Amino acid sequence: MKKNPAFPTSIEEFLEQGEQYYLPHLSIDCVVFGFHDGHLKVLLLQLSNTNEWCLPGGFIQHTEPVDDAAVRIVFQRTGLRNIYLRQFYAFGDPSRQRGKDKLQMPKGAKPNSWIMKRFITIGYWALVEFSKAVPIPDQFSSQCGWVNVTKIPRLILDHNSILDKALQSLRISLNDYPVGKDLLTEKFTMPELQRLYETILNKKLDRRNFQKQILSLEILERLKEKKQGGAHKSPFLYRFDGRKYQLALKKGLRASFA
Amino acid sequence: MKKNPAFPTSIEEFLEQGEQYYLPHLSIDCVVFGFHDGHLKVLLLQLSNTNEWCLPGGFIQHTEPVDDAAVRIVFQRTGLRNIYLRQFYAFGDPSRQRGKDKLQMPKGAKPNSWIMKRFITIGYWALVEFSKAVPIPDQFSSQCGWVNVTKIPRLILDHNSILDKALQSLRISLNDYPVGKDLLTEKFTMPELQRLYETILNKKLDRRNFQKQILSLEILERLKEKKQGGAHKSPFLYRFDGRKYQLALKKGLRASFA
Repeated sequence: MKKNPAFPTSIEEFLEQGEQYYLPHLSIDCVVFGFHDGHLKVLLLQLSNTNEWCLPGGFIQHTEPVDDAAVRIVFQRTGLRNIYLRQFYAFGDPSRQRGKDKLQMPKGAKPNSWIMKRFITIGYWALVEFSKAVPIPDQFSSQCGWVNVTKIPRLILDHNSILDKALQSLRISLNDYPVGKDLLTEKFTMPELQRLYETILNKKLDRRNFQKQILSLEILERLKEKKQGGAHKSPFLYRFDGRKYQLALKKGLRASFA
Repeated sequence: MKKNPAFPTSIEEFLEQGEQYYLPHLSIDCVVFGFHDGHLKVLLLQLSNTNEWCLPGGFIQHTEPVDDAAVRIVFQRTGLRNIYLRQFYAFGDPSRQRGKDKLQMPKGAKPNSWIMKRFITIGYWALVEFSKAVPIPDQFSSQCGWVNVTKIPRLILDHNSILDKALQSLRISLNDYPVGKDLLTEKFTMPELQRLYETILNKKLDRRNFQKQILSLEILERLKEKKQGGAHKSPFLYRFDGRKYQLALKKGLRASFA
C-alpha cells in the first residue's frame, strides 16, 4: 500500500493495478437527485463506447474515509461539489459482479482483473440545486445527464434497485431533513415547496396541513417580496433562515411528512 | 478462493488464513436489542482472556449474501436464531483498524495478519424476545450477556458509536416497523406496549395519543382475557394479528412515533 496514493493515470493501469489504489471488493454508488420544472430527476452516466447507463460510482482509497470517498467520487464523475450526501444502504448480493451481468468492460479488461470480482457497494444519495448544477462527464463516460425518476432506463448491475432504495430513503428523510434547502433556488413560494414534497412522495398533500407542519419547524423566513408574473394572486416568497436551519438540524428535526 | 468455503477450524487458522474464507477489509457488527423489566438491553460479548467488551460481529464469506452473513454471525456468536435483523449503516473511518486501537488480539496474531488491516463494518440491529433468548458465548468469548443501554461499558474500536447509531435507527424505525411483535411476549397490555415505546424513545408519551396511533395501524387484536394480578384495574391483553401484521408490513406502515 502506498502512503499517499494518487489515482491511476490510465484506464489500463486502473484495470490492472487498481487494488494498489483502492480497497478490493468495495465500491460506492451515488444517486444524485435534482428537482426541475416539477420533476424529480437523477443524474446518470452513459459509459463510453456502450449503450450502458449507470449511477456515478467509484472506489475507496486505502486510507480514505468512506464519506470523503463519496464526496470525491461525485466530484470526479460529475463535476459537482458542495452537495448534501447521505449514506443509505450497503448492497451485498454476491451476484454483484461484472462477469455475472454480462457487463462490458472497457477494452483491455482481463477476466482476472480486480474489477471483475464481487463488489459490495455502499449507496449514498445526494441533493443538488438543479439550476447551479452543470454536470460534466468524466473520462469513462460519454454522457452525464438528468433523467426523470419516472423514466429511468435499464441500468447496469443492480443500479435500478439501488435507485429505488435511495428514493425510499429520501422519502423517509423528509421527516428529519428539510430537503428544500438543497433542491430549490434560494427564494421559493409555499406552493413550490409543497410541489417538491409531493413529487418526492408521489402523492398529493393537504395544503393547510403541509403549510402548518413546515412552518412549525421554524426554519423558514417569509420575505416581504411576492412572486410576480403568475396568473393567480402573487404568493409570498420564502427562504430558509440559515441560523435557525443549522440550529434545528443540530437539535434534530422530527416531522411526519413521509 | 474455495468453491464451498467452510470456516477456519482453529483460532490460528482464522488469524493466518482468514482471507481464504472471508472477504478482506469487511466485517459485520450486530446490535441485538432485548426488552426486559422496563429496560432496553443490548447483547455484549466479553473477549476471552481480556477485559474487553464488544458487539457480536464477524466476517462475510466470499460467496455469501451480506444479509445471510449477518444472520449466521448472530447465531454463531450468540446462539440466537429466527430474529428480526435490519441493516442500518456502514462505518468507514480509516482508523477502524485493530493496531490503532491497541486492541489486544488472541495469542498468535501477527502484525501482518489480515485481521490487523483496516475494516469497514456493516451494522445491523436485531430484535429478540428476551424471555426466549438464552445467549451462548462462542469460542472467542468468555461471556455473552445483556446490558442495559444506559449502562454500556467502554467497548472496543468504535463499537460505542455503532451502538448509538443503532439506537437512533431503531427509534426512527418505530414509524415503519411495529417492534413490539419481536420484543414482547405473545400477549401484552397496552401500558406494556407503551412502556416499550417510551423506553426506546427515552421519553413519556401521551396515553391516549399512543393508543389511538397504535390501534390505527390495525395490526393488534384485543383478547377477551385480562391481565390478572396487578394492583390496579386489570387491563385488557392484546396480541399481534399475524395475518394483518404481514399484510400491513407488505403494504408499508407509516406512523409518527419517533
